[in-house]
Amino acid sequence: MSMYQLGIVKRNIVRADRAAVEKLSRFGVATIHEAMGRVGLMKNYMKPVYTGAHVCGTAVTVLLQPGDNWMMHVAAEQLQAGDVVVAACTSDNEDGFFGDLLATSFRARGALGLIIDGGVRDVKDLAEMDFPVFSRAINAKGTIKATLGSVNIPVVCAGAVVNPGDVVIADADGVVVVPAAMAQKVADAAEAREANETEKRAKLAAGVLGLDMYNMREPLAKAGLKYID
Amino acid sequence: MSMYQLGIVKRNIVRADRAAVEKLSRFGVATIHEAMGRVGLMKNYMKPVYTGAHVCGTAVTVLLQPGDNWMMHVAAEQLQAGDVVVAACTSDNEDGFFGDLLATSFRARGALGLIIDGGVRDVKDLAEMDFPVFSRAINAKGTIKATLGSVNIPVVCAGAVVNPGDVVIADADGVVVVPAAMAQKVADAAEAREANETEKRAKLAAGVLGLDMYNMREPLAKAGLKYID
Amino acid sequence: MSMYQLGIVKRNIVRADRAAVEKLSRFGVATIHEAMGRVGLMKNYMKPVYTGAHVCGTAVTVLLQPGDNWMMHVAAEQLQAGDVVVAACTSDNEDGFFGDLLATSFRARGALGLIIDGGVRDVKDLAEMDFPVFSRAINAKGTIKATLGSVNIPVVCAGAVVNPGDVVIADADGVVVVPAAMAQKVADAAEAREANETEKRAKLAAGVLGLDMYNMREPLAKAGLKYID
Amino acid sequence: MSMYQLGIVKRNIVRADRAAVEKLSRFGVATIHEAMGRVGLMKNYMKPVYTGAHVCGTAVTVLLQPGDNWMMHVAAEQLQAGDVVVAACTSDNEDGFFGDLLATSFRARGALGLIIDGGVRDVKDLAEMDFPVFSRAINAKGTIKATLGSVNIPVVCAGAVVNPGDVVIADADGVVVVPAAMAQKVADAAEAREANETEKRAKLAAGVLGLDMYNMREPLAKAGLKYID
Amino acid sequence: MSMYQLGIVKRNIVRADRAAVEKLSRFGVATIHEAMGRVGLMKNYMKPVYTGAHVCGTAVTVLLQPGDNWMMHVAAEQLQAGDVVVAACTSDNEDGFFGDLLATSFRARGALGLIIDGGVRDVKDLAEMDFPVFSRAINAKGTIKATLGSVNIPVVCAGAVVNPGDVVIADADGVVVVPAAMAQKVADAAEAREANETEKRAKLAAGVLGLDMYNMREPLAKAGLKYID
Amino acid sequence: MSMYQLGIVKRNIVRADRAAVEKLSRFGVATIHEAMGRVGLMKNYMKPVYTGAHVCGTAVTVLLQPGDNWMMHVAAEQLQAGDVVVAACTSDNEDGFFGDLLATSFRARGALGLIIDGGVRDVKDLAEMDFPVFSRAINAKGTIKATLGSVNIPVVCAGAVVNPGDVVIADADGVVVVPAAMAQKVADAAEAREANETEKRAKLAAGVLGLDMYNMREPLAKAGLKYID
Repeated sequence: MSMYQLGIVKRNIVRADRAAVEKLSRFGVATIHEAMGRVGLMKNYMKPVYTGAHVCGTAVTVLLQPGDNWMMHVAAEQLQAGDVVVAACTSDNEDGFFGDLLATSFRARGALGLIIDGGVRDVKDLAEMDFPVFSRAINAKGTIKATLGSVNIPVVCAGAVVNPGDVVIADADGVVVVPAAMAQKVADAAEAREANETEKRAKLAAGVLGLDMYNMREPLAKAGLKYID
Repeated sequence: MSMYQLGIVKRNIVRADRAAVEKLSRFGVATIHEAMGRVGLMKNYMKPVYTGAHVCGTAVTVLLQPGDNWMMHVAAEQLQAGDVVVAACTSDNEDGFFGDLLATSFRARGALGLIIDGGVRDVKDLAEMDFPVFSRAINAKGTIKATLGSVNIPVVCAGAVVNPGDVVIADADGVVVVPAAMAQKVADAAEAREANETEKRAKLAAGVLGLDMYNMREPLAKAGLKYID
Repeated sequence: MSMYQLGIVKRNIVRADRAAVEKLSRFGVATIHEAMGRVGLMKNYMKPVYTGAHVCGTAVTVLLQPGDNWMMHVAAEQLQAGDVVVAACTSDNEDGFFGDLLATSFRARGALGLIIDGGVRDVKDLAEMDFPVFSRAINAKGTIKATLGSVNIPVVCAGAVVNPGDVVIADADGVVVVPAAMAQKVADAAEAREANETEKRAKLAAGVLGLDMYNMREPLAKAGLKYID
Repeated sequence: MSMYQLGIVKRNIVRADRAAVEKLSRFGVATIHEAMGRVGLMKNYMKPVYTGAHVCGTAVTVLLQPGDNWMMHVAAEQLQAGDVVVAACTSDNEDGFFGDLLATSFRARGALGLIIDGGVRDVKDLAEMDFPVFSRAINAKGTIKATLGSVNIPVVCAGAVVNPGDVVIADADGVVVVPAAMAQKVADAAEAREANETEKRAKLAAGVLGLDMYNMREPLAKAGLKYID
Repeated sequence: MSMYQLGIVKRNIVRADRAAVEKLSRFGVATIHEAMGRVGLMKNYMKPVYTGAHVCGTAVTVLLQPGDNWMMHVAAEQLQAGDVVVAACTSDNEDGFFGDLLATSFRARGALGLIIDGGVRDVKDLAEMDFPVFSRAINAKGTIKATLGSVNIPVVCAGAVVNPGDVVIADADGVVVVPAAMAQKVADAAEAREANETEKRAKLAAGVLGLDMYNMREPLAKAGLKYID
Repeated sequence: MSMYQLGIVKRNIVRADRAAVEKLSRFGVATIHEAMGRVGLMKNYMKPVYTGAHVCGTAVTVLLQPGDNWMMHVAAEQLQAGDVVVAACTSDNEDGFFGDLLATSFRARGALGLIIDGGVRDVKDLAEMDFPVFSRAINAKGTIKATLGSVNIPVVCAGAVVNPGDVVIADADGVVVVPAAMAQKVADAAEAREANETEKRAKLAAGVLGLDMYNMREPLAKAGLKYID
């Protein structure tokens, strides 16, 4: 599947391993991003539309045209339980591509949430439904249904490449994409990192300095750091 | 009244029909914007200063000068019960033109809220008072009282034309302006739209696809949409 | 101490008088900014990372390099009870320089909060810890530890000069800096202003117009304001 | 004609008096804006697409839909010699609505230039043709032809209201709109202002201070200005 | 090669067919973008650092770390005649990663230009050298050499995926990426499109309306367009 | 002199050594910024208002109020040959504080140019006069003369602290501030750096790689860089 094909819906996609997704769902975006080697983050203009929104699932991707949400309806049919819709657009556009009706439909088809590099509306309803949405904008402006995009092709959403079936995790810190093939390995790395952090947190809470815990004093001195009174 | 007259206060303005305003107050901004034919929205940089703020009322308009809130005090005297102050500025400026003292004054005069293409402060107090304010910025920076603007002339606020007496509705999705003369018709259209949406929502919740409910399959095929495996 | 010295940690700084800091902590940012003569505010892109965050304390300053939080660990050792870390960066950068581990360490050393002209992460944890942070961005992107900046030199943070030991106050309206030497005087001026406002608020709530309370009618007429019907 | 009517083309519009337009064309935007009383300017994100572009003419207005330039072709038919096309959009959109083919068509129909609150492309060709265009963006992204907007209704373009037939003047300093009915008066005021400036310029060039020429010393002293050594 | 591998330099990359690249170099970005089916454009914040800059060549990709240009030197060794360096960064950063020394080195190695989602400096020198650079920013701020990125892995640069060997074309209208495998086909489509445009241009210059040339009158009427006087 | 004093004009300021200023004028901003140790740069939103503008001189500082250019006239009287006016504002404001009349006055008083964290107008005239101006915006919007700021107090301009008498250098790469006391030392360091660069440039032009010239191969290998085919 090419990123450059418009007018295509791919029906059979390979979703990331369910157990790996479940394991990833236990970690925050910052932890997973570190476990990935500090890559895979979307731009930080992507924001939850209500406080407390978070989601982890497998991507069904959508490529939209500006001011046009036709492909969102096409995507609905491709959803399975555990999916998260990831919507990109062929140009920067903050129109309201999504609202409570589509949220109702997506949820009925099993979707867990939406990540969209565009605008959404009905955000009070979305909060009441607790249907997590991360978007670049909130905008009451509605859209038309006139031009084809695609469903389940690779897309660039908010600066990150998302292939259908990849794992997408979003919380208050941002949105991170884990390629399906790396899901288990990243989940394991996240687990190891978190275990490690618990111990560190306890030490720091007891007043131990990072300077000592991370053995920074020598490299700092070597780099030339000077203390003066 | 011209948009280009500085130093003017218009005292007698024709407010939108009270019953139409009351009816409009029952609908959200997204619904009303659709009922208007997808026009009349302010730019989506306008944000509520606290979660849950919403307001619907008749506009008393103010044209401010940058860094100067003198006309806000002049506007206070023109307020009647059910009004919403709509403040524009002769240039982009995010100074804090408004705070809890003016909110107290506006409320005492019957105003329901403020829409301002500028900055405001004392937002914690505004939240505690539950005095809804939608602004382009929050800013502690105070203003002076030195230069005339106008009250109750037509203004462009955040990209939308507002005439004194127009209905202004604001909620989490944005801010929309309904010309006084269209208020009843738009309220009726919003009501029809909402009735229609309730039915759609039920179908979508039951798993019916928008593709079928909106009869999109044929136009999509005609536009060339291809399904592949 | 020069603003232009990299690789320096100043250990002995003169903190603002504790009683003055305590007094300043009773007032909001908007009030203190007015009491300062409308100067000393940081840019209004600085936002609390959770609703309700507020802090008042003495500045320990940090100059960071882009994508590098090494100096945050160096700063931790310099903290005393009642301090607020104020972090600037040598270039605009929204990477996540700070998270829950550093917050744990800073709190263990007595710090009350963080003001950072950069990004932070783990914001859900920060909210749960109620560790107030004001930043230009939220970003899961982590940082390295490779290049020296400085601790406790004068910095420009979000447009405001902060000297170590200055008082920094932050709430929903923004962030203001009070030079240590001005702390008592500004606290007194803030107190006087607030007393004055209580009386005004009562009058305005009773329906008195600012036009009359502030004697604006005559200067408005003199400036040429015209009332029309 | 309402601002809120989509799908309308108004054929007969009243253009500003030709002599007044010709007179206005002799002055810069800054001068005309002052002559208007410091109102009527578009937002300063509007930029010439090549150095040296400037234009003055009567507005034929277009309301576009995002990502759709269908109405530009409709507008072409309504053009007369001396017109400037002023294009607004129902939502913020930087797609490339206009390029050298439309410029060729507009010029063939008598148009002098384009002001567009959107994107344009083929800017090298536009520079070679010396067809002045002022836009919010340059963007190679093409548009579709699917949804109706309107031609020759009042529009809000980059924050300024433009009625068909109004005079629009654009140069390196920005874009200003002069309502048709005010064209002669504003042209006269601009002329007076410019005459006045020539004399001032000579004095200032000779070293006379604005402080003295504008008699500012007394009001400055009264405002409290203090000179120290 | 994965997008997620840091610390890797791929030496043997497959460059697009030289004849196809040469053919593509004869067309502008807007034309090629249309020939691609309106995909493949970088974000329009990418700007030439001097007027008249344009370039077409095969991509050698670089993934940078914020504030660090170490990988630029690594990339220099991988350059061949006809290459264009395409540099992305792991986070948004406008530091000056590139200046006249690196331009001298790149040119000596055969490179034709640079596309960088970051800042550059020495822009006066770059103009004098006529070394075309398209960047998101101009910034005198220098960078360090401390952290590994990668060379010749797939990158997302200003919203577009670039694989090593792809064709990158940049001019005043923007920057477009043509996958190596599509180069010949897109070049042919661009040629066809341009031939087609020459004819259209002549007609439009003669006063023929797009309305007639493109047969728009009937679909416009069908869509409901109304002409009024 | 405090940064926080409004209503003050300091008449006697200590300007940087004239010979040091002259020497600094021979180097570009990027070179000087490196010679400073990579500090002292203004934000990169500061842009020349015409291509080719560059300036080097001693700062006369101005603190403006939003929408008010009164202090510019006050500053004119304090100018000496070789000065550059550096204007900051108490809040972000892009109004046009400066135009050709003030440029005429400043030049008559010996000033070489203007750096302003605000807007300017008459930019075509400024280009014709070759009076270099670096600003955050171009804006035809005029200002009033109503509120006191200060002249020759320390200011924060576009993120950099400027003390009266400091050296300010601006060119196509940006604006850098050299404290008066550091002028000679920085000029010497810039000279040394530039000499060094000439030699490097020749080597790079001859095809020597930075990898070898800077001995990067070993540290890169140590950092873990891997070459693959």
